[in-house]
Amino acid sequence: MTSREQRPPQKWDVIREQTVYADRWVRVVLADVRLPNGRMYTYTTLWRVPGAAVVALNEQGEILLLQEYRHPLGEVIYQLPGGLVDAGETPLSTAQRELLEETGYEAEEWERLGSVQDNPGLIDGATTLFLARGLKRVTAPMPEWTEFHTVGWYSLDWVKERVKSGEMTDRAVLAALAFLCTRGM
Amino acid sequence: MTSREQRPPQKWDVIREQTVYADRWVRVVLADVRLPNGRMYTYTTLWRVPGAAVVALNEQGEILLLQEYRHPLGEVIYQLPGGLVDAGETPLSTAQRELLEETGYEAEEWERLGSVQDNPGLIDGATTLFLARGLKRVTAPMPEWTEFHTVGWYSLDWVKERVKSGEMTDRAVLAALAFLCTRGM
Repeated sequence: MTSREQRPPQKWDVIREQTVYADRWVRVVLADVRLPNGRMYTYTTLWRVPGAAVVALNEQGEILLLQEYRHPLGEVIYQLPGGLVDAGETPLSTAQRELLEETGYEAEEWERLGSVQDNPGLIDGATTLFLARGLKRVTAPMPEWTEFHTVGWYSLDWVKERVKSGEMTDRAVLAALAFLCTRGM
Repeated sequence: MTSREQRPPQKWDVIREQTVYADRWVRVVLADVRLPNGRMYTYTTLWRVPGAAVVALNEQGEILLLQEYRHPLGEVIYQLPGGLVDAGETPLSTAQRELLEETGYEAEEWERLGSVQDNPGLIDGATTLFLARGLKRVTAPMPEWTEFHTVGWYSLDWVKERVKSGEMTDRAVLAALAFLCTRGM
Protein backbone atom coordinates (compact mmCIF):
# COMPACT_ATOMS: atom_id res chain seq x y z
CA MET A 1 0.00 0.00 0.00
CA THR A 2 2.03 3.02 1.30
CA SER A 3 -0.18 5.23 -0.84
CA ARG A 4 1.31 8.17 -2.68
CA GLU A 5 -0.43 10.83 -0.65
CA GLN A 6 1.25 9.67 2.57
CA ARG A 7 4.16 11.89 3.59
CA PRO A 8 7.09 10.10 5.23
CA PRO A 9 7.42 10.79 8.97
CA GLN A 10 10.02 13.41 9.84
CA LYS A 11 12.35 14.01 12.77
CA TRP A 12 11.15 16.25 15.58
CA ASP A 13 13.04 19.34 16.75
CA VAL A 14 14.09 19.19 20.40
CA ILE A 15 13.85 22.65 21.97
CA ARG A 16 14.81 21.78 25.54
CA GLU A 17 15.53 18.70 27.63
CA GLN A 18 15.28 18.28 31.38
CA THR A 19 16.50 15.24 33.31
CA VAL A 20 13.94 14.60 36.04
CA TYR A 21 15.42 11.38 37.44
CA ALA A 22 18.70 9.49 37.00
CA ASP A 23 20.54 6.66 38.72
CA ARG A 24 23.07 4.06 37.56
CA TRP A 25 20.40 2.09 35.68
CA VAL A 26 18.01 4.60 34.11
CA ARG A 27 17.48 8.24 33.17
CA VAL A 28 14.11 9.98 32.73
CA VAL A 29 14.14 13.02 30.45
CA LEU A 30 11.32 15.42 29.66
CA ALA A 31 11.88 16.71 26.13
CA ASP A 32 10.07 19.77 24.86
CA VAL A 33 9.72 19.01 21.16
CA ARG A 34 8.25 20.81 18.16
CA LEU A 35 5.97 18.41 16.30
CA PRO A 36 5.70 18.35 12.49
CA ASN A 37 2.45 20.34 12.81
CA GLY A 38 4.38 23.12 14.57
CA ARG A 39 2.83 22.51 17.98
CA MET A 40 4.90 22.03 21.12
CA TYR A 41 4.71 18.83 23.18
CA THR A 42 6.49 17.50 26.26
CA TYR A 43 7.64 13.93 25.64
CA THR A 44 8.64 11.60 28.51
CA THR A 45 11.69 9.60 27.43
CA LEU A 46 13.51 6.89 29.35
CA TRP A 47 17.04 5.71 28.75
CA ARG A 48 18.52 2.58 30.25
CA VAL A 49 21.94 0.92 30.15
CA PRO A 50 22.15 -1.30 27.02
CA GLY A 51 22.16 -5.07 27.50
CA ALA A 52 23.14 -8.33 25.86
CA ALA A 53 21.53 -11.77 25.99
CA VAL A 54 22.43 -15.27 24.88
CA VAL A 55 20.50 -17.82 22.83
CA ALA A 56 22.58 -20.87 23.76
CA LEU A 57 21.64 -23.96 21.73
CA ASN A 58 23.14 -27.40 22.40
CA GLU A 59 23.58 -30.25 19.91
CA GLN A 60 20.06 -31.51 20.67
CA GLY A 61 18.68 -28.12 19.66
CA GLU A 62 17.71 -27.27 23.24
CA ILE A 63 17.95 -23.73 24.60
CA LEU A 64 19.45 -22.67 27.94
CA LEU A 65 17.00 -20.64 30.05
CA LEU A 66 17.04 -19.19 33.54
CA GLN A 67 14.17 -19.16 35.97
CA GLU A 68 14.44 -15.96 37.97
CA TYR A 69 12.29 -13.88 40.30
CA ARG A 70 11.74 -10.48 38.72
CA HIS A 71 10.77 -7.85 41.23
CA PRO A 72 9.06 -5.47 38.72
CA LEU A 73 6.59 -8.25 37.83
CA GLY A 74 6.54 -9.94 41.24
CA GLU A 75 6.88 -13.30 39.47
CA VAL A 76 9.33 -16.07 38.70
CA ILE A 77 9.77 -16.07 34.92
CA TYR A 78 11.89 -17.65 32.18
CA GLN A 79 14.69 -15.50 30.81
CA LEU A 80 17.72 -15.75 28.55
CA PRO A 81 21.15 -15.58 30.20
CA GLY A 82 22.37 -11.99 29.86
CA GLY A 83 22.86 -8.67 31.53
CA LEU A 84 23.89 -5.07 31.20
CA VAL A 85 26.90 -3.93 29.16
CA ASP A 86 29.54 -2.76 31.64
CA ALA A 87 31.97 0.09 30.91
CA GLY A 88 34.68 -1.14 28.53
CA GLU A 89 32.61 -4.08 27.30
CA THR A 90 31.07 -4.77 23.90
CA PRO A 91 27.66 -6.47 23.76
CA LEU A 92 29.49 -9.65 22.69
CA SER A 93 31.90 -9.61 25.63
CA THR A 94 28.94 -8.96 27.96
CA ALA A 95 27.11 -11.93 26.47
CA GLN A 96 30.17 -14.16 26.95
CA ARG A 97 30.74 -12.98 30.54
CA GLU A 98 27.08 -13.34 31.52
CA LEU A 99 26.78 -16.82 30.00
CA LEU A 100 29.77 -17.96 32.06
CA GLU A 101 28.72 -16.18 35.28
CA GLU A 102 25.06 -17.12 35.17
CA THR A 103 25.28 -20.67 33.80
CA GLY A 104 28.90 -21.85 33.97
CA TYR A 105 29.00 -22.46 30.20
CA GLU A 106 31.41 -21.30 27.50
CA ALA A 107 30.68 -21.43 23.77
CA GLU A 108 32.96 -22.01 20.78
CA GLU A 109 30.76 -20.23 18.20
CA TRP A 110 29.17 -16.83 18.61
CA GLU A 111 26.88 -15.15 16.08
CA ARG A 112 24.97 -11.87 16.41
CA LEU A 113 21.23 -12.48 15.92
CA GLY A 114 20.01 -8.89 16.18
CA SER A 115 18.77 -6.47 18.79
CA VAL A 116 15.44 -5.77 20.45
CA GLN A 117 14.19 -2.45 21.79
CA ASP A 118 12.19 -2.48 25.08
CA ASN A 119 9.61 0.04 23.85
CA PRO A 120 10.51 2.57 21.14
CA GLY A 121 7.64 4.92 22.04
CA LEU A 122 8.99 5.43 25.55
CA ILE A 123 12.47 3.97 26.04
CA ASP A 124 15.87 3.99 24.44
CA GLY A 125 16.80 0.52 25.67
CA ALA A 126 18.41 -2.06 23.39
CA THR A 127 19.40 -5.65 24.09
CA THR A 128 21.64 -7.42 21.58
CA LEU A 129 21.04 -11.16 21.19
CA PHE A 130 23.76 -13.63 20.31
CA LEU A 131 23.48 -17.24 19.20
CA ALA A 132 26.00 -19.38 21.10
CA ARG A 133 26.89 -22.90 20.00
CA GLY A 134 29.55 -25.46 20.81
CA LEU A 135 28.73 -25.21 24.51
CA LYS A 136 30.85 -26.63 27.29
CA ARG A 137 30.14 -26.42 31.01
CA VAL A 138 33.40 -25.24 32.54
CA THR A 139 32.34 -24.26 36.06
CA ALA A 140 29.39 -23.94 38.40
CA PRO A 141 27.31 -20.76 37.94
CA MET A 142 28.80 -17.73 39.73
CA PRO A 143 25.84 -15.37 40.18
CA GLU A 144 26.30 -11.89 41.64
CA TRP A 145 25.15 -11.36 45.22
CA THR A 146 21.86 -9.85 43.93
CA GLU A 147 21.11 -12.73 41.51
CA PHE A 148 19.13 -15.89 42.31
CA HIS A 149 18.15 -18.21 39.51
CA THR A 150 18.06 -21.79 38.31
CA VAL A 151 19.38 -22.95 34.93
CA GLY A 152 17.92 -25.54 32.59
CA TRP A 153 17.84 -26.87 29.01
CA TYR A 154 14.49 -26.81 27.22
CA SER A 155 13.46 -27.97 23.74
CA LEU A 156 12.39 -25.25 21.30
CA ASP A 157 9.02 -27.03 20.97
CA TRP A 158 8.56 -26.77 24.74
CA VAL A 159 9.41 -23.05 24.55
CA LYS A 160 7.01 -22.50 21.62
CA GLU A 161 4.18 -24.16 23.56
CA ARG A 162 4.80 -21.84 26.52
CA VAL A 163 4.93 -18.78 24.29
CA LYS A 164 1.64 -19.88 22.74
CA SER A 165 0.04 -20.49 26.15
CA GLY A 166 1.15 -17.06 27.39
CA GLU A 167 3.58 -18.34 30.03
CA MET A 168 6.62 -16.68 28.40
CA THR A 169 6.31 -12.92 28.03
CA ASP A 170 9.83 -11.51 28.21
CA ARG A 171 10.56 -9.54 25.04
CA ALA A 172 14.05 -11.09 24.81
CA VAL A 173 12.69 -14.66 24.83
CA LEU A 174 10.07 -13.71 22.22
CA ALA A 175 12.72 -11.90 20.14
CA ALA A 176 14.93 -15.01 20.32
CA LEU A 177 12.09 -17.09 18.91
CA ALA A 178 11.49 -14.51 16.16
CA PHE A 179 15.19 -14.46 15.20
CA LEU A 180 15.35 -18.29 15.15
CA CYS A 181 12.14 -18.35 13.09
CA THR A 182 13.65 -16.03 10.44
CA ARG A 183 16.52 -18.53 10.18
CA GLY A 184 14.15 -21.45 9.68
CA MET A 185 14.96 -23.00 13.07
CA MET B 1 18.58 -30.27 33.19
CA THR B 2 17.16 -28.25 36.17
CA SER B 3 19.39 -30.30 38.44
CA ARG B 4 18.10 -31.43 41.79
CA GLU B 5 20.42 -29.25 43.85
CA GLN B 6 18.93 -26.05 42.36
CA ARG B 7 16.50 -24.32 44.69
CA PRO B 8 13.56 -22.59 42.99
CA PRO B 9 13.75 -18.78 43.05
CA GLN B 10 11.63 -17.18 45.77
CA LYS B 11 9.76 -13.89 46.12
CA TRP B 12 11.56 -10.94 47.68
CA ASP B 13 10.26 -9.05 50.71
CA VAL B 14 9.63 -5.37 50.07
CA ILE B 15 10.52 -3.33 53.15
CA ARG B 16 9.86 0.16 51.78
CA GLU B 17 8.97 1.81 48.49
CA GLN B 18 9.59 5.39 47.41
CA THR B 19 8.19 6.96 44.24
CA VAL B 20 10.94 9.19 42.86
CA TYR B 21 9.20 10.25 39.64
CA ALA B 22 5.68 9.96 38.24
CA ASP B 23 3.67 11.44 35.38
CA ARG B 24 0.71 10.24 33.32
CA TRP B 25 2.86 7.74 31.41
CA VAL B 26 5.37 6.28 33.88
CA ARG B 27 6.27 5.87 37.53
CA VAL B 28 9.76 5.25 38.92
CA VAL B 29 9.89 3.50 42.30
CA LEU B 30 12.91 2.72 44.46
CA ALA B 31 12.12 -0.46 46.38
CA ASP B 32 14.18 -1.47 49.41
CA VAL B 33 13.99 -5.25 49.26
CA ARG B 34 15.34 -8.10 51.37
CA LEU B 35 17.04 -10.60 49.08
CA PRO B 36 16.87 -14.39 49.64
CA ASN B 37 20.37 -14.18 51.18
CA GLY B 38 19.02 -11.77 53.82
CA ARG B 39 20.87 -8.73 52.44
CA MET B 40 19.11 -5.45 51.67
CA TYR B 41 19.12 -3.98 48.16
CA THR B 42 17.54 -0.93 46.53
CA TYR B 43 15.86 -1.95 43.27
CA THR B 44 14.90 0.63 40.63
CA THR B 45 11.50 -0.32 39.20
CA LEU B 46 9.55 1.37 36.42
CA TRP B 47 5.85 1.06 35.79
CA ARG B 48 4.16 2.25 32.62
CA VAL B 49 0.55 2.35 31.40
CA PRO B 50 -0.31 -1.03 29.79
CA GLY B 51 -0.78 -1.15 26.04
CA ALA B 52 -2.36 -3.14 23.23
CA ALA B 53 -1.23 -3.77 19.66
CA VAL B 54 -2.72 -5.28 16.53
CA VAL B 55 -1.40 -7.94 14.18
CA ALA B 56 -3.75 -7.22 11.26
CA LEU B 57 -3.49 -9.83 8.49
CA ASN B 58 -5.34 -9.50 5.18
CA GLU B 59 -6.44 -12.32 2.88
CA GLN B 60 -3.08 -12.26 1.10
CA GLY B 61 -1.37 -12.91 4.46
CA GLU B 62 0.10 -9.40 4.53
CA ILE B 63 0.51 -7.48 7.80
CA LEU B 64 -0.44 -3.85 8.44
CA LEU B 65 2.49 -1.79 9.77
CA LEU B 66 3.04 1.86 10.60
CA GLN B 67 6.15 3.85 9.89
CA GLU B 68 6.53 6.34 12.69
CA TYR B 69 9.19 8.66 14.08
CA ARG B 70 10.02 7.57 17.61
CA HIS B 71 11.63 10.30 19.64
CA PRO B 72 13.34 8.00 22.21
CA LEU B 73 15.30 6.35 19.36
CA GLY B 74 15.51 9.42 17.11
CA GLU B 75 14.52 7.21 14.17
CA VAL B 76 11.63 6.36 11.87
CA ILE B 77 10.78 2.71 12.58
CA TYR B 78 8.18 0.07 11.74
CA GLN B 79 5.53 -0.56 14.40
CA LEU B 80 2.27 -2.39 14.90
CA PRO B 81 -0.90 -0.30 15.17
CA GLY B 82 -1.64 0.10 18.88
CA GLY B 83 -1.47 2.33 21.90
CA LEU B 84 -2.06 2.70 25.61
CA VAL B 85 -5.10 1.30 27.40
CA ASP B 86 -7.25 4.27 28.42
CA ALA B 87 -9.34 4.33 31.61
CA GLY B 88 -12.44 2.17 31.12
CA GLU B 89 -10.95 0.23 28.23
CA THR B 90 -9.92 -3.42 27.97
CA PRO B 91 -6.81 -4.28 25.94
CA LEU B 92 -9.15 -5.59 23.20
CA SER B 93 -11.18 -2.37 23.02
CA THR B 94 -7.92 -0.39 22.93
CA ALA B 95 -6.70 -2.56 20.06
CA GLN B 96 -9.95 -2.03 18.15
CA ARG B 97 -9.94 1.74 18.75
CA GLU B 98 -6.29 2.15 17.81
CA LEU B 99 -6.63 0.09 14.63
CA LEU B 100 -9.48 2.32 13.51
CA GLU B 101 -7.84 5.61 14.57
CA GLU B 102 -4.38 4.85 13.24
CA THR B 103 -5.23 2.98 10.04
CA GLY B 104 -8.94 3.45 9.27
CA TYR B 105 -9.55 -0.32 9.34
CA GLU B 106 -12.08 -2.43 11.20
CA ALA B 107 -11.80 -6.20 11.65
CA GLU B 108 -14.45 -8.91 11.86
CA GLU B 109 -12.37 -11.45 13.79
CA TRP B 110 -10.29 -10.74 16.88
CA GLU B 111 -8.09 -13.24 18.68
CA ARG B 112 -5.72 -12.68 21.63
CA LEU B 113 -2.19 -13.75 20.68
CA GLY B 114 -0.46 -13.11 24.00
CA SER B 115 1.37 -10.34 25.79
CA VAL B 116 4.93 -9.06 25.80
CA GLN B 117 6.76 -7.40 28.68
CA ASP B 118 9.09 -4.46 27.85
CA ASN B 119 11.84 -5.62 30.22
CA PRO B 120 10.99 -7.74 33.27
CA GLY B 121 14.24 -6.89 35.08
CA LEU B 122 13.37 -3.19 35.14
CA ILE B 123 9.82 -2.47 34.03
CA ASP B 124 6.27 -3.59 34.71
CA GLY B 125 5.05 -2.78 31.20
CA ALA B 126 2.85 -5.20 29.27
CA THR B 127 1.47 -4.95 25.74
CA THR B 128 -1.27 -7.38 24.71
CA LEU B 129 -1.22 -8.43 21.05
CA PHE B 130 -4.34 -9.32 19.09
CA LEU B 131 -4.68 -11.00 15.72
CA ALA B 132 -7.22 -9.13 13.57
CA ARG B 133 -8.72 -10.64 10.42
CA GLY B 134 -11.57 -9.89 8.09
CA LEU B 135 -10.30 -6.34 7.59
CA LYS B 136 -12.25 -3.56 5.96
CA ARG B 137 -11.10 0.01 5.44
CA VAL B 138 -13.99 2.14 6.70
CA THR B 139 -12.40 5.59 6.94
CA ALA B 140 -9.18 7.52 6.51
CA PRO B 141 -6.76 7.30 9.46
CA MET B 142 -7.62 9.73 12.27
CA PRO B 143 -4.34 10.14 14.18
CA GLU B 144 -4.18 12.16 17.39
CA TRP B 145 -2.55 15.59 17.15
CA THR B 146 0.74 14.14 18.47
CA GLU B 147 0.83 11.21 16.00
CA PHE B 148 2.42 11.23 12.55
CA HIS B 149 2.77 7.98 10.66
CA THR B 150 2.24 6.25 7.35
CA VAL B 151 0.39 2.94 6.95
CA GLY B 152 1.22 0.04 4.65
CA TRP B 153 0.70 -3.67 3.94
CA TYR B 154 3.80 -5.86 3.95
CA SER B 155 4.25 -9.59 3.30
CA LEU B 156 5.41 -11.70 6.24
CA ASP B 157 8.44 -12.77 4.17
CA TRP B 158 9.34 -9.08 3.73
CA VAL B 159 9.00 -8.58 7.50
CA LYS B 160 11.10 -11.67 8.27
CA GLU B 161 13.88 -10.42 5.98
CA ARG B 162 13.93 -7.08 7.80
CA VAL B 163 13.96 -8.77 11.20
CA LYS B 164 16.87 -10.90 10.02
CA SER B 165 18.75 -7.87 8.65
CA GLY B 166 18.26 -5.97 11.92
CA GLU B 167 16.01 -3.27 10.48
CA MET B 168 13.06 -4.18 12.74
CA THR B 169 13.83 -4.01 16.45
CA ASP B 170 10.56 -3.13 18.20
CA ARG B 171 9.75 -5.82 20.76
CA ALA B 172 6.09 -5.82 19.68
CA VAL B 173 6.94 -6.56 16.03
CA LEU B 174 9.35 -9.31 17.11
CA ALA B 175 6.75 -10.70 19.54
CA ALA B 176 4.18 -10.70 16.73
CA LEU B 177 6.52 -12.80 14.61
CA ALA B 178 7.15 -15.17 17.54
CA PHE B 179 3.41 -15.60 18.17
CA LEU B 180 2.73 -16.21 14.46
CA CYS B 181 5.65 -18.67 14.38
CA THR B 182 4.17 -20.71 17.28
CA ARG B 183 0.99 -20.96 15.21
CA GLY B 184 2.86 -22.22 12.17
CA MET B 185 2.25 -19.03 10.17
